[in-house]
Amino acid sequence: MALPARPTLGFVGLGVMGRPMAGHLLDAGFPLVVNTRTPATAEGLLARGARWGETPAVVASQCDLAITMVGYPADVEAVYLGAHGLLAAAKEGAYLVDMTTSSPALAGRLAREAHDAGVHALDAPVSGGDVGARNAKLAIMVGADPEEFEAVLPVLRNLGTNVVLQGPAGTGQHAKMCNQIAIASNMLGVCESLAYARHAGLDPERVLESISAGAAGSWSLSNLAPRVLAGDFAPGFYVKHFIKDMRIAIDSAREMGLKLPGLVLAEQLYERLAETGYEDAGTQALYKLYED
Amino acid sequence: MALPARPTLGFVGLGVMGRPMAGHLLDAGFPLVVNTRTPATAEGLLARGARWGETPAVVASQCDLAITMVGYPADVEAVYLGAHGLLAAAKEGAYLVDMTTSSPALAGRLAREAHDAGVHALDAPVSGGDVGARNAKLAIMVGADPEEFEAVLPVLRNLGTNVVLQGPAGTGQHAKMCNQIAIASNMLGVCESLAYARHAGLDPERVLESISAGAAGSWSLSNLAPRVLAGDFAPGFYVKHFIKDMRIAIDSAREMGLKLPGLVLAEQLYERLAETGYEDAGTQALYKLYED
Repeated sequence: MALPARPTLGFVGLGVMGRPMAGHLLDAGFPLVVNTRTPATAEGLLARGARWGETPAVVASQCDLAITMVGYPADVEAVYLGAHGLLAAAKEGAYLVDMTTSSPALAGRLAREAHDAGVHALDAPVSGGDVGARNAKLAIMVGADPEEFEAVLPVLRNLGTNVVLQGPAGTGQHAKMCNQIAIASNMLGVCESLAYARHAGLDPERVLESISAGAAGSWSLSNLAPRVLAGDFAPGFYVKHFIKDMRIAIDSAREMGLKLPGLVLAEQLYERLAETGYEDAGTQALYKLYED
Repeated sequence: MALPARPTLGFVGLGVMGRPMAGHLLDAGFPLVVNTRTPATAEGLLARGARWGETPAVVASQCDLAITMVGYPADVEAVYLGAHGLLAAAKEGAYLVDMTTSSPALAGRLAREAHDAGVHALDAPVSGGDVGARNAKLAIMVGADPEEFEAVLPVLRNLGTNVVLQGPAGTGQHAKMCNQIAIASNMLGVCESLAYARHAGLDPERVLESISAGAAGSWSLSNLAPRVLAGDFAPGFYVKHFIKDMRIAIDSAREMGLKLPGLVLAEQLYERLAETGYEDAGTQALYKLYED
């Protein structure tokens, strides 16, 4: 099960997350084959020694462990199972690690199909955003067998500091859903708190001074509320991607027979926000819904 | 406007918050007159040198600054304006500081009526709970004129470390509403995240290990989620008191023409929780609604 001492790695998906992550693997000295939808985004990595793989299948045929970091579950499905996909071309015993935030059910299906093909497919979504990706400080939530986890851990340690095995295939994605669910309702609380402060004629800076360090405190209150007050709605994390994640969580909860009214409300409000033209803004733009 | 060098203080309301707070004022060497609905709760303070005032009016007639820490806005109204209330009996130029979480509109009205009577009435609600009260580490949000704030600050510093002037009368209560609004929706996120973890068959401890330090992190996730997992639903902060606070915030938002759907949802769910017998549990008992 163990990887070779100096495995050749693959990386598919070189967006704002994937590009710096692939760069850390190059820095660590791994031979690297890359593929992405927009080849121009690979240029920096190719100049630093990465090789280009014309398709995901070409990447898979050349490496011992391939990481994928794409956009939506449909992209994951295409990259793994489509024509020129990873799975059919992967070498026997190779590891395919999907770090996209995607559907737990799809992760389970990929693991089963990979197993039947003599390949390992793991889910390992992350939190920490583009800053975490650049600083190699991502939290990585892994769904895998314990032996598979041990095998890929030395590679993942180059990307994050908090790498936790959550359980079998799919549980990494489920844990990421727990992360997004906690964030979703909290964003309502943060934005509604700021909106109330403004409407009541308070100085929101003084309110944050009073409440940020106590029981109302949160990462979002400390990091995103000041951006709202500064009128900065640039993405950290895109509204459109957050909506994708919340939809996966809602579908997944429904399949489990679990009702999550806070999550459902948050998703509806973010949908409305996207419809008013903010789908490419950061999640803190939710505040805009309370302004008028 | 300044208080005497060694002012006599009053304290009305010796519950889980008021009792330790009054104790800190005794420790600091202030002469103290106390009154509370259930006289037995004053015994410890009387043994340490506090004097008993038979009614709020008796307390007010004997002190330069009286603090009130009672339950509901109706209690505040009775203690200030009722028969044997503070306001009619207060000495000229005395300070009356309501630290109850109460209605911003009532705080404004008390300040105006006090002003007409030659007395200062301030609102100074707190966050930090019984632990903050015992450790004198409350966050105190003050609604007052700047001169009034300066006058009472040396006394309030014995109760909290983060004492912030929010603006004129009523703004302390408004700031506290901002605190409760941020907490309300976040509690949905925390409980829904844990419920999802359990339904998905995850180990919730490992989920917390992955998500608590990142963008999903919050005081509630770090402090209340572990209590939920331990089956500990004892109050830190009572469900029934949280409902009171959310109702004040909802009424206050409605008066300002502001819609807060997250807060409204949270209040509805907490009402349902109270109806199922959890009104005297801690706010983390919200998790019970997601169990079945």
